[in-house]
Amino acid sequence: MKRTSRDIRRGNRNELLRYVIARSPVSRQELAAATGLSLATVANLVGELLERGVLVEVGFEDSDGGRPRGLVAMRADGGALIGVDVAETYIHVELFDLALRLLARAEEPLSESENRPEQVVGHITSGVRAVLDQAGVDIRLVLGAGVSMPGQVEREGGLSVFAPNWNWRDVPLRDLLAGALDFPVYLDNPLMACTVAELWFGAARGCDDVIVVNLGTGVGAGIAVGGSLYRGFSNTAGEWGHTTLVLDGRVCHCGAMGCVEAYVGAPGILNTLREVDPDSAILQLDQATAIGALADALAKEDAAALETVKRTARYLGVAVGNLVNLLNPQVIVLSSWVAARLGTALLSGMREAVAEHALPRPLEHTRIMLCPIATNAVSLGAATFALEGALAPGKA
Amino acid sequence: MKRTSRDIRRGNRNELLRYVIARSPVSRQELAAATGLSLATVANLVGELLERGVLVEVGFEDSDGGRPRGLVAMRADGGALIGVDVAETYIHVELFDLALRLLARAEEPLSESENRPEQVVGHITSGVRAVLDQAGVDIRLVLGAGVSMPGQVEREGGLSVFAPNWNWRDVPLRDLLAGALDFPVYLDNPLMACTVAELWFGAARGCDDVIVVNLGTGVGAGIAVGGSLYRGFSNTAGEWGHTTLVLDGRVCHCGAMGCVEAYVGAPGILNTLREVDPDSAILQLDQATAIGALADALAKEDAAALETVKRTARYLGVAVGNLVNLLNPQVIVLSSWVAARLGTALLSGMREAVAEHALPRPLEHTRIMLCPIATNAVSLGAATFALEGALAPGKA
Repeated sequence: MKRTSRDIRRGNRNELLRYVIARSPVSRQELAAATGLSLATVANLVGELLERGVLVEVGFEDSDGGRPRGLVAMRADGGALIGVDVAETYIHVELFDLALRLLARAEEPLSESENRPEQVVGHITSGVRAVLDQAGVDIRLVLGAGVSMPGQVEREGGLSVFAPNWNWRDVPLRDLLAGALDFPVYLDNPLMACTVAELWFGAARGCDDVIVVNLGTGVGAGIAVGGSLYRGFSNTAGEWGHTTLVLDGRVCHCGAMGCVEAYVGAPGILNTLREVDPDSAILQLDQATAIGALADALAKEDAAALETVKRTARYLGVAVGNLVNLLNPQVIVLSSWVAARLGTALLSGMREAVAEHALPRPLEHTRIMLCPIATNAVSLGAATFALEGALAPGKA
Repeated sequence: MKRTSRDIRRGNRNELLRYVIARSPVSRQELAAATGLSLATVANLVGELLERGVLVEVGFEDSDGGRPRGLVAMRADGGALIGVDVAETYIHVELFDLALRLLARAEEPLSESENRPEQVVGHITSGVRAVLDQAGVDIRLVLGAGVSMPGQVEREGGLSVFAPNWNWRDVPLRDLLAGALDFPVYLDNPLMACTVAELWFGAARGCDDVIVVNLGTGVGAGIAVGGSLYRGFSNTAGEWGHTTLVLDGRVCHCGAMGCVEAYVGAPGILNTLREVDPDSAILQLDQATAIGALADALAKEDAAALETVKRTARYLGVAVGNLVNLLNPQVIVLSSWVAARLGTALLSGMREAVAEHALPRPLEHTRIMLCPIATNAVSLGAATFALEGALAPGKA
C-alpha cells in the first residue's frame, strides 16, 4: 500500500530513462526540467545509471556563458534486450539494443495444434536464436527477455496461470524457458506490455492517466494511473473486453452474455458481418485474413463492409465512452492488429457514439488516437519489462 | 506526473494519521510496523504533527524490558473540523473534533425551489452555526470545512462547475462561503468524499485498490488506487452511473440511453417497480420516501417489491461485475442512502449476476460489502478534506 522511497526511486528512474531514450543526448539540467525532478535527484540517478553502464557520457554543451553541461545518452551497446509476443497464431521475437532500438525480428507461425508448453518454448528459443544470428549479437550481451503471454499471468512466479485459448493452467513458462535460455525472463501479458510501450515510446509519453484499448482476437484496456501501469489487486485489471455492453446480448466465449469483446473482438466483428451479409465470402477466411479482407472491401466501399464497420464503430464508441466516464483519462490509444487494419475507419466512425455516451466534462479532456508505434508494441513493451528487470534492486 | 517527495510525504502522513485515528494511543514503533514506513520517517512525521498541535504525547508503554515507548494520540481538542453534504433535498452539516469524532450534526431540508446559490450558502452557514451552538465550540477553533457538492467541481478554484439537478454552472461556491464563514472551505464532490471516508474510517482502511459504489438519486463509483483517491485527468473520474449497461436501453437524464444510473439510481429502481406493478401506491410518494416504502414492502415479502429488488440486484450485479473485470479491486463498498435502505437485499440478490459476469480470477480477490460507517460518510469524508487542507504545506 504505502509507497516506499524505493518505489519512488524506481518510478523516477523509469521516467528519466524514458526521456533519455527519447532525446539522447541530454544534459542533467534538461532532464530535471523535463521530469520535474530536482537536479540533485537527477544527478544521483544519472550517476547510478552511468556506473551500471546503462548511460554513457557523450560530450558537453554550452550553457549561455555558464559552465559547459555534460551530456549523457543511453549506452546502446551496453547490452541487448529481447521482447517476445506470444499470440494465438504466432510468436514474434524482437531484439533491441539498450536504447530500445530494434536490431532484428523473427516471427514463428503457430499452427492450431502447436500449443503444448514445450512447443511454445521451442518456438520462442528458435526465434531468439534467429534474431541473435541476424544481428550478430552475442547471447552473453542479453540482459533479459520480456515474454508477453495471453491470458492471466503470475509475474512473480513466472506462471501462465490461465491461457484461455490453449487451456493452459499454471504452466511454469519462465522456468521452462530458463532451461533453454541463459538470461532472465520476465513474464507478463500483452495488455500490460502494449500499455508500457505507449508510456515509454508512444502516445502516452509524459501522460498521467492513459488507457490503451487493445483490439485483437480478444480485447482489453491497459490502464495507466499517474504515468504508471495499473495492475489491480491480482494483476488482472483491464478486462474491459468482458464488461457488459448489451445486457443479455451475444454469447461471449467467456461464458457471459453481451460482453464488449463479443462485439469488437475480431470474431465479434465477423459475427456482425454475418448479421449484415450471411453469404459474405469473407466469412470463409481465417480470422486474421478475414479482417484484412474486410479492410480491403471497406476501401472499395463495399456496402456490407461499410455497414459492418459502422456497427462495430458504434459498439466500440459506446464501450470507449464507458471508459471516458469511469476513468476520465487524458489519452485513449487504439492498439493491436485489428486497430492497425480497421483503426482509421473505426476512429472516425466511433466519434458520434462516443460523444453521445461520454459526458462532456471528461470527454473534453480526452484525446482518442491510434497507436503511433510502427513496430510490434507488445514486443517493445515486453523488452521494456526486461530493461526494468535488469535495473531492479539487487541486480548488478 | 512525477511523484515528488512532497507527495510522498503527504501520502505517508495521511496514512499515519489514519492509523493514529483508528488506534490512539499508539507508539511510533507500532505506527512503523502498521504502515511499513521506517521508524525514522515515522518519528519525523510524528514530530511535525506534535509541533503543529495535531498529535499529543499521552504517556508510555512498556516494551518487554526495553526502554518504555512514548505513546501519541490525536489531539482531539486541537481544533474542530466541519463536513457538509449538500444534496438535492437537504444540506447535512457535521462538526468533528480533530480525531474526527462527531460532536454535533444539523440537517437543513431544501425545498425544490431553494436552489439558488445564495439560498444554499444561507443553509450551509445556518447549519454551521447550529452545530457550533449545539457543541459549544468557538468558531475560532474551526480549522476548515469540507463541502461536498453534487456534480462536477473544480477544487482548486472552489467552483461548482456543473450541478445537473440545479443547472448551476461555474458557481464560485467557495468564495460565496468565504464571505459568510471565517475559515477555509474545501470543495469536492460526494463520490470523492465518501471514498475518502472509506479509506480513512471504513471498509477500505489499509486497502490499495478500492471502489465505493455510491447508490443514491445519482450513482457513481469512487475509485482508490494504491490507497489514494483516483480523480482522473480533470477530477471527473467515477461516472460509472453513466456507463452503458443496456445498449439502447432506458433513457437516462444525462441524455444517453441505457446508463447504469437509469436502472440502479433511485428513480431507476422506481421505474422498475412501475414495470412490475404500474398501480403500486409507492409510486405516488416522493423518491426518498418511496425507497423506504419499498424496503418496508420487501420486509413484508410483497411480491412486487421482491421482483423489483430482484431485477435491480441483477442490474447492479452486472454493472458491479464490470468494475471487477475492468479494475480488479480488492474491495467494493456499497454506500449512500439507497444502499442503507436496500443494501442487504441488493447484496445477496446481486451475487449470482456478479458471478455470472465477473471473471473468476479478479473476482476471487474481491470483497463486496456494505458501507460500515454508521454516520454520514459524505460529511465525514468532507471533514477529512478539511483536515488534509489544514495540514497542507504552507499552512501554519
